[in-house]
Amino acid sequence: MTEFRSVVAETGEAHGDPLTVHGPEDVAAACAAADAAFDTYRATSNEERAAFLERIADEIMGIGDELIEAYTRESGLPKGRAEGERGRTCGQMKMFADVVRKGQWEQIRIDPAMPDRQPLPRPDLRLRMIPVGPVAIFGASNFPLAFSTAGGDTASALAAGCPVVVKGHPAHPHTGGLVADAISRAVKASGLPEGVFQHLSGPSNELGAALVQDPHIMAVGFTGSRAGGLALAKLAQERPVPIPVYAEMSSINPVILLPHALKARGSDLGTAFVGSLTMGAGQFCTNPGLVLAIEGDGIEDFITAATGGVSESKPQTMLTKGIASAYAKGLEVLSGLPGVDMLAKGEEGSVTTGGTALFQTSAEKFLAEPKIAHEVFGSSSVIVRCKDEAELKQVLEAVEGQLTATLHMDDADQAAAGRLVPVLERRVGRILVNGWPTGVEVCHAMVHGGPFPSTTDPRTTSVGSLAIDRFLRPVSYQNFAQGLLPPELRDDAKGDGVPRLVDGKLTVS
Amino acid sequence: MTEFRSVVAETGEAHGDPLTVHGPEDVAAACAAADAAFDTYRATSNEERAAFLERIADEIMGIGDELIEAYTRESGLPKGRAEGERGRTCGQMKMFADVVRKGQWEQIRIDPAMPDRQPLPRPDLRLRMIPVGPVAIFGASNFPLAFSTAGGDTASALAAGCPVVVKGHPAHPHTGGLVADAISRAVKASGLPEGVFQHLSGPSNELGAALVQDPHIMAVGFTGSRAGGLALAKLAQERPVPIPVYAEMSSINPVILLPHALKARGSDLGTAFVGSLTMGAGQFCTNPGLVLAIEGDGIEDFITAATGGVSESKPQTMLTKGIASAYAKGLEVLSGLPGVDMLAKGEEGSVTTGGTALFQTSAEKFLAEPKIAHEVFGSSSVIVRCKDEAELKQVLEAVEGQLTATLHMDDADQAAAGRLVPVLERRVGRILVNGWPTGVEVCHAMVHGGPFPSTTDPRTTSVGSLAIDRFLRPVSYQNFAQGLLPPELRDDAKGDGVPRLVDGKLTVS
Repeated sequence: MTEFRSVVAETGEAHGDPLTVHGPEDVAAACAAADAAFDTYRATSNEERAAFLERIADEIMGIGDELIEAYTRESGLPKGRAEGERGRTCGQMKMFADVVRKGQWEQIRIDPAMPDRQPLPRPDLRLRMIPVGPVAIFGASNFPLAFSTAGGDTASALAAGCPVVVKGHPAHPHTGGLVADAISRAVKASGLPEGVFQHLSGPSNELGAALVQDPHIMAVGFTGSRAGGLALAKLAQERPVPIPVYAEMSSINPVILLPHALKARGSDLGTAFVGSLTMGAGQFCTNPGLVLAIEGDGIEDFITAATGGVSESKPQTMLTKGIASAYAKGLEVLSGLPGVDMLAKGEEGSVTTGGTALFQTSAEKFLAEPKIAHEVFGSSSVIVRCKDEAELKQVLEAVEGQLTATLHMDDADQAAAGRLVPVLERRVGRILVNGWPTGVEVCHAMVHGGPFPSTTDPRTTSVGSLAIDRFLRPVSYQNFAQGLLPPELRDDAKGDGVPRLVDGKLTVS
Repeated sequence: MTEFRSVVAETGEAHGDPLTVHGPEDVAAACAAADAAFDTYRATSNEERAAFLERIADEIMGIGDELIEAYTRESGLPKGRAEGERGRTCGQMKMFADVVRKGQWEQIRIDPAMPDRQPLPRPDLRLRMIPVGPVAIFGASNFPLAFSTAGGDTASALAAGCPVVVKGHPAHPHTGGLVADAISRAVKASGLPEGVFQHLSGPSNELGAALVQDPHIMAVGFTGSRAGGLALAKLAQERPVPIPVYAEMSSINPVILLPHALKARGSDLGTAFVGSLTMGAGQFCTNPGLVLAIEGDGIEDFITAATGGVSESKPQTMLTKGIASAYAKGLEVLSGLPGVDMLAKGEEGSVTTGGTALFQTSAEKFLAEPKIAHEVFGSSSVIVRCKDEAELKQVLEAVEGQLTATLHMDDADQAAAGRLVPVLERRVGRILVNGWPTGVEVCHAMVHGGPFPSTTDPRTTSVGSLAIDRFLRPVSYQNFAQGLLPPELRDDAKGDGVPRLVDGKLTVS
């Protein structure tokens, strides 16, 4: 068995004592406990569950500086980012507490009986959403708090009423362990069974495979590489009872510079672009890895500013030595592709850092070589120069499914933008105007998802309140006596402020 | 190439001229046309799409008696059933017209910008659902109208804004062809591109396989056998871009007779049960193929009445000779299983008919032999005698995912029912009290779906208005100028009666 230890991102060296390595029996025990806790947990009231989520946020804040220190040490990311992400993580828990309290998540539908209907009476039918069952969550390396142990997947699954078994990310075991302990304290303080939340740790992929294959697990949330997501999805499909895997995988997030905007502020756009590209060492799912521009005024200003920014950029510690080395490898492959020219490269550091890199190619070359569109995880981007709007559209249509696309535009670009939006809608989950894709707002109208291969399931999102829907399924109750119905479906539940679709008409009482 | 002809269900003989057999090029052409029509079709207003769905209903009614004759000839089902199903099919189209008009399907969410928020401003974010793209629909043999060419899958996909390519069921090509022509007339009359609806016909599975594998197809609706559904789901998963398959497959729909109800009306329940079991020659997805009862008063009354009813039952023409022969084979297998006793068998007919059959076993034997729980498509059912409630619960926990479960109960059974409902919720999509599972109401609170293997995706339903969600995915628009937003997301759309979640608060203006 490999020794499993926390690693200091900056030095690549081990830190602290050897850590617990869970095995197949631990997986089986955790999943059985999650299953045993399911009926108790899902029977909690919305208020109880909301208070529990808020308690988790309090417990995470209660860890204090120890958490920030573990985070920065294990991720190489700065303190400000750690604090911001902690705030986001706790804010996310509180948002889901609010969602649970409001009750819309239950999607209540009531079709009252019509005893006199001809030719046949209509029975009384009532529908609500129930949680799917125990959920396995795989944290991401690039957001050790907001997309990991207590991240959006865990928050939305717990909000739905699903017990959660987390496979802690081996790149930040101390951070994950501290957060897991905080959640377990909240479980205990809320009088819930321990099986509501469990945390497994270890460095191997086998651990995750066993988790996805456990018959008690009913859904999987994952954020990470395409290879990892596809492997889990395959395992999940091959189970005797297949289950959904919500994997958020690779994306290169095209940024489109429309002619008038480019002409008016090519240089400013170039500078701002480098800011988005280099943020967090480029380790964002929404990093702008592809820039599309039409030949014309402003394109050279953009390139000059971007090239300058990239050349001056400092190397940044990457999340793991493995990621830094995969990044270096990715740059090497990209540099070697026919028709791809390196425009600029930032300062280089050690084996644990990544320097920024900027490439350019023509639309023609891009269309001829699919590898140019492969994600290079880190601060690397490719500018694709297009002859005209038609060619730009061709490039977009050749691009795989993405999390985001961005339009930089002025008023005079509106007609062109209007022609491109339908193309983008079919390819991405979120379209931005005059912004940068890094920075994903946690709110109700967010879609952090998109067509394959950006995710395995474009019908949903992993950020924002809509994420709860992933862990729900509908059940219909026909001709139930009032006393046997779940409380929220009874006639006397009216007035609780929960929206209900009654006979097809939405009512909020 | 096998000749492809319509077959008279009652005689098993061919009827009418040889029919068109579509091949791989036809599939490719149809899917390309559907893709080409997609952007035009999805850009129609809710009102235009609703009027189109209503026009389909009118065109189907306009076919007149020719449709009823083809239906009864091809299915062997009686005229009353044909007329009822036609009404249901058209009613379904009209229900979706209403759903489309009301606009709730778009699930609009608006989080207005907060320019002064600290530490960072919040951008304006707006979300709506858009259709997933062209959809392939496989009709079912057992509902030649309501689950076939113009059935719930087609209606909900068209309502969502998805072009549809139907693979017509070879058991009712004349019925399907008449309906397909009616839909195409509605397409034309509505000024829509022909690619909005297309119909492929032929006897082979390869045709369906090619359809699921076509890169333009973005989702699949299927109702049929477990083997068929799983084969399509596998093909869909193995595509370069995997797509969801909504397959409604096998179900044996447990009916639970609780002690007080059984004691009070065992004999009446036995008679009513045979009515549900034999309806439509037992060819319903919701046919009651499993009856669970606890030993005690009334169980013999139930069995006496059920046995009598089954013995007196007449043979009924089945949908196809193949189904009749599979049914006979299924009865043979069931009869030969250890611990399974045949209680009664109805009158037998020809090779195109199926006679009713009733079996009994003990809970112990049932738990020891999983094959007892395999669906036998037709009017066959197994009574499982349980020693007590604990054993009954054990049997339920051993049963695979189901479309429905039914509780027959009196007031005095309420405590026992309350203990069983959580068990049933985890296993089925719809729970009925004091009714029979055959007969699926088309309404808003219906779930005709359930855990695997009753369907491939328990997060949804194939009957009722919630079915539209299968063909939608969310897109988020960040910082769009009003003029670039889809009309329903603009500020001036308020007052159109469409519900919107604004800053997390549901508003209906």
